[in-house]
Amino acid sequence: MKTEAVILRSYDVPPSVEERVIPELRQNEILVEIEAATTCGTDVHIASGTFANLANLPLVMGHEGTGRVVKSNGRNVDVNGNQLRVGDRIVWAHPWCGNCYYCAVAGQPTLCDGTVGYGWGPSSDDGLNGTFARHLIVSAYSKVIVVPDQLDPALVSSATCALRTVMQAFSRIPRIKFSDAVVVLGSGPVGLYAAAAALAAGAHKVHLFGAPRERLAITHDWGLGLTLDVFETTSEERRNAVISKNENRGVDLVIECAGPADAFNEGISLLRKGGTFLMLGQAHKDKVAVDTTSLKVRQINIVSSLSAEITHFNEAIKFLTTFSERFHLSRMVDGERYGLSDISKALGAMKSGSSIKPVIIPTKSN
Amino acid sequence: MKTEAVILRSYDVPPSVEERVIPELRQNEILVEIEAATTCGTDVHIASGTFANLANLPLVMGHEGTGRVVKSNGRNVDVNGNQLRVGDRIVWAHPWCGNCYYCAVAGQPTLCDGTVGYGWGPSSDDGLNGTFARHLIVSAYSKVIVVPDQLDPALVSSATCALRTVMQAFSRIPRIKFSDAVVVLGSGPVGLYAAAAALAAGAHKVHLFGAPRERLAITHDWGLGLTLDVFETTSEERRNAVISKNENRGVDLVIECAGPADAFNEGISLLRKGGTFLMLGQAHKDKVAVDTTSLKVRQINIVSSLSAEITHFNEAIKFLTTFSERFHLSRMVDGERYGLSDISKALGAMKSGSSIKPVIIPTKSN
Amino acid sequence: MKTEAVILRSYDVPPSVEERVIPELRQNEILVEIEAATTCGTDVHIASGTFANLANLPLVMGHEGTGRVVKSNGRNVDVNGNQLRVGDRIVWAHPWCGNCYYCAVAGQPTLCDGTVGYGWGPSSDDGLNGTFARHLIVSAYSKVIVVPDQLDPALVSSATCALRTVMQAFSRIPRIKFSDAVVVLGSGPVGLYAAAAALAAGAHKVHLFGAPRERLAITHDWGLGLTLDVFETTSEERRNAVISKNENRGVDLVIECAGPADAFNEGISLLRKGGTFLMLGQAHKDKVAVDTTSLKVRQINIVSSLSAEITHFNEAIKFLTTFSERFHLSRMVDGERYGLSDISKALGAMKSGSSIKPVIIPTKSN
Amino acid sequence: MKTEAVILRSYDVPPSVEERVIPELRQNEILVEIEAATTCGTDVHIASGTFANLANLPLVMGHEGTGRVVKSNGRNVDVNGNQLRVGDRIVWAHPWCGNCYYCAVAGQPTLCDGTVGYGWGPSSDDGLNGTFARHLIVSAYSKVIVVPDQLDPALVSSATCALRTVMQAFSRIPRIKFSDAVVVLGSGPVGLYAAAAALAAGAHKVHLFGAPRERLAITHDWGLGLTLDVFETTSEERRNAVISKNENRGVDLVIECAGPADAFNEGISLLRKGGTFLMLGQAHKDKVAVDTTSLKVRQINIVSSLSAEITHFNEAIKFLTTFSERFHLSRMVDGERYGLSDISKALGAMKSGSSIKPVIIPTKSN
Repeated sequence: MKTEAVILRSYDVPPSVEERVIPELRQNEILVEIEAATTCGTDVHIASGTFANLANLPLVMGHEGTGRVVKSNGRNVDVNGNQLRVGDRIVWAHPWCGNCYYCAVAGQPTLCDGTVGYGWGPSSDDGLNGTFARHLIVSAYSKVIVVPDQLDPALVSSATCALRTVMQAFSRIPRIKFSDAVVVLGSGPVGLYAAAAALAAGAHKVHLFGAPRERLAITHDWGLGLTLDVFETTSEERRNAVISKNENRGVDLVIECAGPADAFNEGISLLRKGGTFLMLGQAHKDKVAVDTTSLKVRQINIVSSLSAEITHFNEAIKFLTTFSERFHLSRMVDGERYGLSDISKALGAMKSGSSIKPVIIPTKSN
Repeated sequence: MKTEAVILRSYDVPPSVEERVIPELRQNEILVEIEAATTCGTDVHIASGTFANLANLPLVMGHEGTGRVVKSNGRNVDVNGNQLRVGDRIVWAHPWCGNCYYCAVAGQPTLCDGTVGYGWGPSSDDGLNGTFARHLIVSAYSKVIVVPDQLDPALVSSATCALRTVMQAFSRIPRIKFSDAVVVLGSGPVGLYAAAAALAAGAHKVHLFGAPRERLAITHDWGLGLTLDVFETTSEERRNAVISKNENRGVDLVIECAGPADAFNEGISLLRKGGTFLMLGQAHKDKVAVDTTSLKVRQINIVSSLSAEITHFNEAIKFLTTFSERFHLSRMVDGERYGLSDISKALGAMKSGSSIKPVIIPTKSN
Repeated sequence: MKTEAVILRSYDVPPSVEERVIPELRQNEILVEIEAATTCGTDVHIASGTFANLANLPLVMGHEGTGRVVKSNGRNVDVNGNQLRVGDRIVWAHPWCGNCYYCAVAGQPTLCDGTVGYGWGPSSDDGLNGTFARHLIVSAYSKVIVVPDQLDPALVSSATCALRTVMQAFSRIPRIKFSDAVVVLGSGPVGLYAAAAALAAGAHKVHLFGAPRERLAITHDWGLGLTLDVFETTSEERRNAVISKNENRGVDLVIECAGPADAFNEGISLLRKGGTFLMLGQAHKDKVAVDTTSLKVRQINIVSSLSAEITHFNEAIKFLTTFSERFHLSRMVDGERYGLSDISKALGAMKSGSSIKPVIIPTKSN
Repeated sequence: MKTEAVILRSYDVPPSVEERVIPELRQNEILVEIEAATTCGTDVHIASGTFANLANLPLVMGHEGTGRVVKSNGRNVDVNGNQLRVGDRIVWAHPWCGNCYYCAVAGQPTLCDGTVGYGWGPSSDDGLNGTFARHLIVSAYSKVIVVPDQLDPALVSSATCALRTVMQAFSRIPRIKFSDAVVVLGSGPVGLYAAAAALAAGAHKVHLFGAPRERLAITHDWGLGLTLDVFETTSEERRNAVISKNENRGVDLVIECAGPADAFNEGISLLRKGGTFLMLGQAHKDKVAVDTTSLKVRQINIVSSLSAEITHFNEAIKFLTTFSERFHLSRMVDGERYGLSDISKALGAMKSGSSIKPVIIPTKSN
């Protein structure tokens, strides 16, 4: 049986659709047909070679996706104990090994030494380990969750990266209190989901700093406090605006989902003494000039988080069930939908920010 | 200057309104005029002598209330750093001593050895330490919060006991996750606020068991899962209903706000293995027959909480600001409003359950 | 290749040594030669049929043990990343499935629905899943740790049940503070290790209640506070002794490792308000009459724990390395050492308490 | 009644002993006679004007001390509920206000906005708010603890700053596990106490980096892992030494008690992925160039702490009682003892590092 996948063979040539043979499943592997995949900023970086030291060519692109079970070799329940049947919609975590120091002793599988995630390659000729494809083989090491049919598969796909990242992050900070004031830096998918999650967790005030204006607009009916466009305001103006809203003290929690180096010190400057800085975004090559004495005197805590375990995927799916209507989360995936052969257009839309989450429907004919 | 207060002098005679002289304020005391006070089940028990071993006659009744500053002897800011001016609306915590083992070493002031709460007496002739009165003197040991004018003072008053109790309780359990299923036992003020708070914190499913039917009805548009009337269902029926909703496992968290002895084992039976039982309600004279071996084998945790610190009052006030509209919390205090001389009627309404929170407006003429 | 194992076929007949064929290893299984196994109260209960509803006959007895790698089919590192070579000494956790709700979502693998531990059967003709045997096959689902050669294998074996149980338990309670007063109830292996661990964690005072006198004697140079013999004192005398040592307040933490029903209320009575009851021992068929109202008013928390994950085995091994000299832990296993055919004697010594941890050396000729 | 105190009037003139009149006590104040005071690096900085923006001249110097009650105006118990009698030895925390946002809402009194600590001034003519004096008046806002007579008052004095700082810090990080590897950076009083406390809490390995050699020598029998002299090794050598001891992964916890800017990045480089950096020392005017992307990818957490609450003083005193013998803590204060008029010599000994904790005995005649 044959299928198709978007293959990246070189950083000099755009990825393209190739035909592949679907191999026999090994023990505990699951073959899925991808219903919807979504594009991530990381895919843009992989295709352009920014992460050449981490990616392994050739590779099948894509790590966000939702699929339907075609065949399962030995697994018949998901992690919730639900039956796993042909035709069921599922999502899956990265294949953490389960037996290394980080998985088994530290209890932090997202630091697993022995894994390579979907969409990072390497992919031999019959490798189906990326979501930008008609089919994918779920690793025996990936835990899976059956997802209700009533959710839009594109929305579910978007939750398999950004939202589950927010869920793990929230598990690492002190519980959000009903009196907490929060600033979210960044309005990419992680930032938007972080803002929604902070509201959903009951925070008293949630402010969002991001851009562009149309992106921020999708939050207009969420109940946010300040929504500040970073293209139209200075860091100083933003700080004054937040502080004046908050008894001149600064906020309890800053969630950094922005990425650039200068978001670090901007975020720290927004905190009250004793506040928490949750760092999810920093992704740059710079060194940041940090006043560590001030951090200590102000007794600031910094918490980092990256990726997520299957339990956070579970929270993400349940979050969608409960809150997708309240936050109109379909807006996250309401842009143009692309076929596999439109991959360069999809990556372009992600890069330009013209779409929050470009959606790829592998069965879409072009 | 004179004022009026509801005084309880004997368990054989109903409390009645007496005239009192307002004394000079000592250092850091604040004189407030009560805007609204609310009745608690505890007041019913105090008046009837159930708590004769704890209460000190004669006493000024009432511990829930909101007042406006008439005069402050030395304090001019609240705990948020807001100015405290004549005419400001405030709430106040019980007068924890701050210097005993529980206040200062254990960090659990609600276990303070050296305090007597408002409404528990003793009250000498010029004592003004209860909320069922025209005026009250806030102790130098009570921390205070300025409350926004736009909130209904009766609603604020109801938050000074039930809701702040829920806030402290939530600070003691593992953070509520977006995937959590919760059962709240009891639909008195604490149970209703606990259910609202669990929803507001983002729980996936919140079920409520209580009575009577009209009481449960006020939650019809909250987004609860099951709402089961304990007068019309058996414990077994309720358990089956919850379990079948939850992958046959039981829920992550049970919040006991019911009171009677049998709520303990019913609550435990609803938990999944490894779940948490949050005990806020138990108030009876029985011993409960507990299968402690099963508790251990199922690895159940039990968390207790009682009363609250000023930080939880702060969370409660902010909770009202954020959520009173979403949960239509005005329904908590929409019954008849009583003057001081109607005290027996108010206590009767509390006892019969005909009103969730009978409201006393001391300035109301009869 | 043949080996020998202690097989339990019926509750009417004592277990006996039988010859077994060592089967081929499946993927990721490890064949070990048992160096030392230790006897647990649970083995006594299994042999006598107390746990007939949980055990599966016929079975290979024994769940505590240390072995040396004979052959490994596919695994070549332990959870610390150390090489796993033929001849290495290892310990292994129960084979938690890793994919069920409790393993993967709740993050509590000791509640795994899909496992049967070593020593509980069932064991077909070539089953080697108990430690009272010359050889054992470590399941593909069991995580393993390489253990330093300088530790006594019998001591390591004793740590694979009692001590790792204490390690998981300590991970669930608030950190032990340098000012904490602790009571340990029970002087079986779990109680002794709990007392040593509380001292090793820096507790200010650790009191031990147990029996018999000779058992308590092994702790004489540990630096315990009170060591009270429960055969020679009343519950009231013990409580008075503890309270008078502790500013008349009761202790911060009670660790129940005793088992009988009445240990529950005795333990609760020893706590200060706001204290924590850690329940590890309760194993009886009774219902305990609990004053749940008092639990709530005193704001007591109850934490349960059972068994342990591989990370706690790792802590246990490191604990032995650091502390076996300070606490003279060789005293835990300094009784007579038995061959496989002495199994009935070993179980008898456990039952009578004449030995703390009867040690079985499978290679010992009789 | 008259007394003597070391007064700092100008940064151009060394502090000198002046006579002062002991004023009447206000409500809840306590007059103590200082038994012993100890010198802190902070005192050196105050005297030289480094903290001119925070200190208030003229001031009575000294914030570390132990005293005996001469007179108490209204307080008769300590925070443990022990009687407070004339002649009792006590210690006291800084006078946190108890009513500001940080004290009452955030629950972080060491961030109190409304306090000035002992030894920081201002001090009017009858001010007795520093420990380098014959007498001190304990503020009504300072909570106090009665200290056992058998402890050396100089040792107790040293615990009122460095050790209680370590106690608060330990309360903010994940519990130290019996498998944890820890590096302490810095061998000043805070570093030495942090190393002792990490060992006392049961850490598997504790390494200490500091100087000079004689300072490190006092830890030779503590059971530390590596003890590396920062004057004789490079940062790279130290890192290699630690990593090779720890399965090439880095340690679980780094406690920074060193102060200089470069200790920050050295500390971070010693951590395993997912590890915790506890920052107690940073005190410099530089910006540190931090690779924040690496912090996020390695999922590092940073915890800050400064000063301590009375509960941590309580832990510190109990720590001394339990552990001063094991760690020979008298070595912390075994240098020359100074009278008040020797103040410049004491500050010099602190500055040069020739003494760990120069001790001032105000009653010592010169």
